[in-house]
Amino acid sequence: MFEFDIQHRDGRARVAQFHTPRGTLTTPMFMPVGTQGTVKGISPQELIEIKSQMILGNTYHLMLRPGEELVRAHGGLPGFTAYPGPFLTDSGGFQVMSLGHMRKITEEGVTFKSHLDGSMVKLTPERSIEVQQALGADVIMAFDECPPFPAEREYITRSLERTIRWLDRCLSVQNNDHQALFAIVQGGIHEDLRQHSLDLTLPFNTLGFAIGGLAVGESKAEMYPAVAFTAARLPENKPRYLMGVGHPEDLVAGIALGVDMFDCVYPTRTGRFGYALTDDGRLNMNSSAPRRQLEPIDADCDCYACRHYTRAYLAHLVRAEELLAPRMLSLHNLRYLHRLVERARDAIAVGEFGQWATTWAERYFKGQIPDWFADTLQQEPSAGQPPAMR
Amino acid sequence: MFEFDIQHRDGRARVAQFHTPRGTLTTPMFMPVGTQGTVKGISPQELIEIKSQMILGNTYHLMLRPGEELVRAHGGLPGFTAYPGPFLTDSGGFQVMSLGHMRKITEEGVTFKSHLDGSMVKLTPERSIEVQQALGADVIMAFDECPPFPAEREYITRSLERTIRWLDRCLSVQNNDHQALFAIVQGGIHEDLRQHSLDLTLPFNTLGFAIGGLAVGESKAEMYPAVAFTAARLPENKPRYLMGVGHPEDLVAGIALGVDMFDCVYPTRTGRFGYALTDDGRLNMNSSAPRRQLEPIDADCDCYACRHYTRAYLAHLVRAEELLAPRMLSLHNLRYLHRLVERARDAIAVGEFGQWATTWAERYFKGQIPDWFADTLQQEPSAGQPPAMR
Repeated sequence: MFEFDIQHRDGRARVAQFHTPRGTLTTPMFMPVGTQGTVKGISPQELIEIKSQMILGNTYHLMLRPGEELVRAHGGLPGFTAYPGPFLTDSGGFQVMSLGHMRKITEEGVTFKSHLDGSMVKLTPERSIEVQQALGADVIMAFDECPPFPAEREYITRSLERTIRWLDRCLSVQNNDHQALFAIVQGGIHEDLRQHSLDLTLPFNTLGFAIGGLAVGESKAEMYPAVAFTAARLPENKPRYLMGVGHPEDLVAGIALGVDMFDCVYPTRTGRFGYALTDDGRLNMNSSAPRRQLEPIDADCDCYACRHYTRAYLAHLVRAEELLAPRMLSLHNLRYLHRLVERARDAIAVGEFGQWATTWAERYFKGQIPDWFADTLQQEPSAGQPPAMR
Repeated sequence: MFEFDIQHRDGRARVAQFHTPRGTLTTPMFMPVGTQGTVKGISPQELIEIKSQMILGNTYHLMLRPGEELVRAHGGLPGFTAYPGPFLTDSGGFQVMSLGHMRKITEEGVTFKSHLDGSMVKLTPERSIEVQQALGADVIMAFDECPPFPAEREYITRSLERTIRWLDRCLSVQNNDHQALFAIVQGGIHEDLRQHSLDLTLPFNTLGFAIGGLAVGESKAEMYPAVAFTAARLPENKPRYLMGVGHPEDLVAGIALGVDMFDCVYPTRTGRFGYALTDDGRLNMNSSAPRRQLEPIDADCDCYACRHYTRAYLAHLVRAEELLAPRMLSLHNLRYLHRLVERARDAIAVGEFGQWATTWAERYFKGQIPDWFADTLQQEPSAGQPPAMR
């Protein structure tokens, strides 16, 4: 039921068709985050209009409220949220670390205090899969620990080894074939620990692999070598998912390194704060300049906000704290990221990704392309099966 | 450019086509309120989908922020807000009374302290029309004073007489034919003062008339006799607008008394507070019952929320304080009021309005129809031209 067909390659970047039970996705793709069963402020119809493909749901949040059984009673997330396409759910592991209080990690799993009502909750690999089965996403994630940054090498090692034992337990209870379980490679920003995690993870031969444990506080100069190292050693013929990333520049850099899937709350969160994403960087709609500008945020954008509204109108909504402001800026920002990956795919298809990415970055970074970004465009193409798979 | 063609009559209720430069409206109609240039949380496309006809804008708010010149630079409210249909703007008089601080009313106009930045602002009949011309609505309102409730008879009399002098000044500066200026009849809940206001207002022969000064704190038993008295004495062949009303029961009662136009922030405001309007009364989505109900708010409703979501999902959004909650409940509530007037129009067209209204009220009031409501259904039909116009 799951297939990953690569259609174009350009350096390490690739365009593929990812077939899932609820539809075929074209990668690279950005997945909007619907934490509590809704992409904040956006309707399913709008997600379809802006060409979203797969929506992310959060196991931690949905398990606590409204509870996974209510979602199951709706036929899973598509019935509950009315978004009829494919979903991906995370395992809850990351949120336990970032939102749970008084958490205690043992071999069995994690106990923590709910951020909602203070009750003690236990999440184990088995329980995470049980919840994700109830939520019914097409892609589900192995229950992992994402260590904070910075963390001791020794802790990262112990943690990633436990994550492997948890992966084994997840796979032992994942008993249906309409949900693809992806393993998550950890190891922080250390090459040898990434290699250690890869050595232990790849033999499970899951339907896809995620690069976890990044974008948690390290610099981009520290993060991207770890992405490059890990992505190059993941199987060529399976989707690669860089979790919790990213900003526009992260999508372009990640695609350059062979990443296929991204998710991040950034476009909707920054939209709620009054910022609009553009090829010229982030536009602050709280500032005074846009209040008199009669042009759209982005004349090339086909989102509802750009087709109907001036910057002056949207800046007025932001200033007046109108509900339509976060809605329209979130919609635009999501569409911006979708258009960005669409443009990247088009460039890959014609073998001009590096040139396109450089041109895009020159404008986006206003002529000051940072080294970490330039480095991602200068990686040698991976040759066939990566080292770890030979 | 403005015509009002009555197509059906049933008792005092009537169905008409109100032709305006931006389109023909079918009355009775409910107008969503777009105070600051947006119906809170709702896009123009959605307003069209739920069959909104005319949108109300507030002169007071738009004059203060973003300023009427910016709206004019967009070609008026349709260009600014991207709602391509007809608009109505109020005169600012009511908001000065309810929102302005330290206000001082003189023969010239009103000075007040802006609720936004504390600056002193002056609003006169001439200035109100100037702003409304810049906003570019199809129907604009005379600058009036709406006395508080309760107020002394002597004060109401002085106020309504000044409002007439202000009407005269408004008309003397309203110099285009694509904006219809409606006069406003005042007089509180006193028949003789309403008659006094009518006697002074009707000779101006404006293109429509509003019933003002109601729904400001008096009981429905006090308000509806004043509506009945006033509406019956307004010209048969011109639109009648009951300002700032209402709740579902107000629309049905007002229609029974021959009112054609209504506006109120109620559907969007109560939606933001988590309430959904239904034929069974107002549903509290904050309560625990809806959290387990897998049916829509209203199976007969054709709004996006009712076609896509269960009560359980929407109650989850309310509880989780998700942006989609106020949006979807506001959308449903607006559509509920639009459907309510559509059903009333259908009943009028076949001469069954009284029966329909009684059946609707039996269910809505759970068998306990209040006297004030029953009284509105038992008025004798007006016979042709009302008394004051003979």
